[in-house]
Parts: sequence; structure tokens; C-alpha cells
Amino acid sequence: VLAAPDARVVATMDLLVEGRHFRRDWTGPYDIGATAAARNLADVAAMGAAPTALLLGLALPGDLAADWVRELARGMAAEAARAGASVAGGDLSSADTITIAVTALGDLAGADPVTRAGARPGDQVAVAGRLGASAAGLALLTAGRSGPAGLVAAYQRPEPPYAAGPQAAAAGATAMIDVSDGLLQDLGHVAAASGVLIGISAGRLPAAPDLAAAAAVLGGAADPRAWLLTGGEDHALVATFPAGQDLPPGWTAIGTVSAAPDGRPGAVTVDGELPPGPGGWDHFRAAGGYSR
Amino acid sequence: VLAAPDARVVATMDLLVEGRHFRRDWTGPYDIGATAAARNLADVAAMGAAPTALLLGLALPGDLAADWVRELARGMAAEAARAGASVAGGDLSSADTITIAVTALGDLAGADPVTRAGARPGDQVAVAGRLGASAAGLALLTAGRSGPAGLVAAYQRPEPPYAAGPQAAAAGATAMIDVSDGLLQDLGHVAAASGVLIGISAGRLPAAPDLAAAAAVLGGAADPRAWLLTGGEDHALVATFPAGQDLPPGWTAIGTVSAAPDGRPGAVTVDGELPPGPGGWDHFRAAGGYSR
Repeated sequence: VLAAPDARVVATMDLLVEGRHFRRDWTGPYDIGATAAARNLADVAAMGAAPTALLLGLALPGDLAADWVRELARGMAAEAARAGASVAGGDLSSADTITIAVTALGDLAGADPVTRAGARPGDQVAVAGRLGASAAGLALLTAGRSGPAGLVAAYQRPEPPYAAGPQAAAAGATAMIDVSDGLLQDLGHVAAASGVLIGISAGRLPAAPDLAAAAAVLGGAADPRAWLLTGGEDHALVATFPAGQDLPPGWTAIGTVSAAPDGRPGAVTVDGELPPGPGGWDHFRAAGGYSR
Repeated sequence: VLAAPDARVVATMDLLVEGRHFRRDWTGPYDIGATAAARNLADVAAMGAAPTALLLGLALPGDLAADWVRELARGMAAEAARAGASVAGGDLSSADTITIAVTALGDLAGADPVTRAGARPGDQVAVAGRLGASAAGLALLTAGRSGPAGLVAAYQRPEPPYAAGPQAAAAGATAMIDVSDGLLQDLGHVAAASGVLIGISAGRLPAAPDLAAAAAVLGGAADPRAWLLTGGEDHALVATFPAGQDLPPGWTAIGTVSAAPDGRPGAVTVDGELPPGPGGWDHFRAAGGYSR
């Protein structure tokens, strides 16, 4: 029985499956637990709500070390605390593969929820949190590299800017989403739900530190522009704000909203151009290969 | 964003894993979906709350037929509707094994939650819903039988008496739980949490219809007394009520609560005797074999 002082509750659920969402040889249990929490807590923050509680469902092989599970629980509890929430309950089952199901609940404290559907022509587009870091860390691990360490750590455990969500809502944000599938794809959801065109400037994106260093380490295989535009899992928040509205601390303007051209609602342009191909990654469309 | 008019929300989560909680050759997708919903909705009802919403996390093999998933969703939605709730959201992932994670939310409508910890010496013990039916159905399927059909259907899809939960709360129930692991084990949780002794009379248990017929079909392998006392998954509700309190419709008195003898809080007796051995089934203690 959890408090819901607002008389509404924001609820979201996410699944993480070993081999799909994490690899035990790439990420330790503390970071896996923290990431499982972060994915859901960021979804709550992206509605403009303050996270209050997590429920955790764990399906685990019977021969998994108890210490591994303890570390996972510790990481999850720490990330929940970072967002102001607690782990309130859950369920355990045996299974051949580790599956982590997390439900996050949140409170709107009287504010209207911020959805994907409220962006209006003329609005500013802004981002809080880091972009490209998790994708760069994954590229480094895939190439057998262990650094730059900050990017590998960003892949292993995102750091969503939870407080930025309610702050954006209080500042009048008209639409918001967290960047879980890549900036272009997630902004595409906002553009489609709002029936608008969203234009961003690549030069204004707040690139994670060390992206250039990672590109130098990886040489020709690196694509820092793709990390920024299509890299998911950093759980930055991206929102639209009324024109002229001062942005809250931590938010960086990256573009503007305009009316959708005839027959093209939902498009996102980069420096005025429509990017080629899909902007992100989909569990069932992906032909193969490992991805977060 | 869900309504929580009571300013509190009851939240519970359960996992179902293929091969552990269901077999596709024994139970169809509609019933699997309905069962996944029922397990969680019954947990909410057992707090005395009215279920309001489900979140569904589905991890599925990419080659699973879309029709199978549609039927699962249809069964889940139908069972939610039967309890007065709706399926409000969720998540999808690919996986090698089907895993179903369900979160149920509920509303207390101003009532105090009924926990496991409130049973007091002198209280009556009563049950609503059926006992032994699911276990008998599992025994029949394990033996390669397809009937009595009502018991096989009870294994494939429980029918928790959702409304009996809030009705018991309104009638002053002091403790309540749903029978998911077997009557003795679940009453044991109430006895332990309340620090009392619970005594039940085997002859007063409302046996599911056809248990005797199933026993006749199975011959020496059948144990109808064990089905009633230790069979889980029927999701009957069992509660304690103050002495002399009229029971709401659908509730049957089966025993009484007394003070725990020294050093034995949490015990449950049947006809005055402590049953031998554990009273139910545990995912991690079970040495092997198939079980719900």
C-alpha cells in the first residue's frame, strides 16, 4: 500500500532480459540493478512526475550466486534512492535466463502530466542529460576496449537527470520523453504524437565528454554523429518548451518545432535535412547482432 | 497516469515463466493470459482493495505466432474486466522463453488495508472461492487425463472471488490472504504474521465439485485431502473475522484462531493436529519435477 497523495499515480513497466538488454561479462550486477531501475525511473520523470516506488520481479537460474543477486538489489535500491524512490516489493521465480521486470510508480504533485502529444509550432526543443555516451561505451566494449572509462561506465549504468523532469513540467514543458531508443527516434515519437515537424541543430547537441577520444581509439569504426543522434540508453530527457520561456538549469536548447508539411507529420530534421533510414533500434525489427 | 482516488494505491507484481508456471501444451494462450491477470488481481482483492489496472510485461520468442499473443492479451483483458480493472500499459521484449510479468494496482476506497498480521485469538477463519480444484486438474493432466473437465479448466484458469475481498474488508475482516501456495502454507503466513495459532476443520472445507470423481479416475495416485489442504493456484481468499460477526455471502467458516502456544507462533492445525512436513511448494526448495 503506497501513498498516492496526488490521487493519481504514474505507472510504467520495463523488462530486461539477459543477452538482450545486458551481458553479465560486460556489466556487473550492481550496475545491472541500477540500470533496470533507471530505465523505469526515467520514464516516470519524463512525465513530469517524481518517482515514489519500484516493484521488482526477478526470474533467476537456481545456481546463480546469492552475492550476485544481493549486488543487483543494492544497485537497484541505490538508484531508486538517487531518484527519491524506494523498492517496495516484488516477486521471485526460477528460470533458465535472468529476466528483470521493474514497475515504477510516481506522483505528479498536482501538476498536469507531460505527454508526447503537446508540442506546438514555435516551441523550443531542449535536452537535459548526456547523449551518445552509452552508445560510445557499447562500441568500445564491442571492440574489446575498456576506455575511455567514463563512456564504458555510461554504458554500464545510465545517469538520468531525474529532477529535470518535474522542473521542466513546472517551467511549462509542452511535451517530454526520455531518450531510450535514440534522440531521432524518440523525438520522432513526440513529432508524430503532436502532429508537428521537429528540427534540431547537430552543432547544439550537448555531446558527452570523451566522444572524440573514443572515436580516436576506435578509428574508422567510430561514428560519433550516429552515437549522438541514434544512440539509446542514456535516458537523457528531451522536451519542448513555449517560445521565449527561460529553460530550467541543466536544459540546453537544440532546436525548434514547426508545423508539419503536408502529409509528413512526425518528421525530425537535422540541420534542415531528413536523416536517411530509421533513427533507432527495435527489438523485433533488428535482424540480429547484440544491442542494448 | 491512473486514478488513485483514495490517495493510496495497492500495488503487487507477479512473474510467470514458461515451463515453471505454465506449459503451452497444457494451457491455451487465452487461459494463460487470464491466469496471469488472476494471480495479481487476487493479491489486490486479498488486501480488501478493488483492482483498478494491470501493467503487462511480455518477453516472447520472435517466432511465436502473433495469434497466440493476441489470445493471451484477450484472456488477460477479459479477466481484468471480470475484476473491474483494465490493462493500462506495459512493455515487450524478445527472449528465448516466454516470461509474463504483471503488476496490478488497486484502490482501497477509504478502507484500511487488510494484511496478514491482524488475526486475533477468538476470530473465526473463513474461506471464499474453491479449494483443491487446480491441484486436482494438474494431477489429471499429469496422468494424461482430460477430465473431469471442470477440474482441468480450474487448473487452466482460476476464478478468484474478487468481490469477496472488499466485502470481507467491509465486514471487519482482521486478516486476509489469497490461497496461491496451498491453504496450510498461506494460513501459516497469516498465523506467523499475526503471532497466533490457526485451527481448521477438514470436514468444513468447501471442496470443489468433482474432487471425488477425479480421485476415482486416478485411483491410488489421488490424494484429495492433499489437494484441499496443500493445493495452490485456486486463488480462493481466506480471512479471519471477529467472533460472532456474520460472514458476507460466499464465505464459509472453516476454523478458529487461538493464542499461540509457547514457542510455536505461526502454526496451523487440522482437526487439532499439526500436519507433517511442509504444507506447500516453493520455487527454490522444490527438488525437481513440474509444478505450477
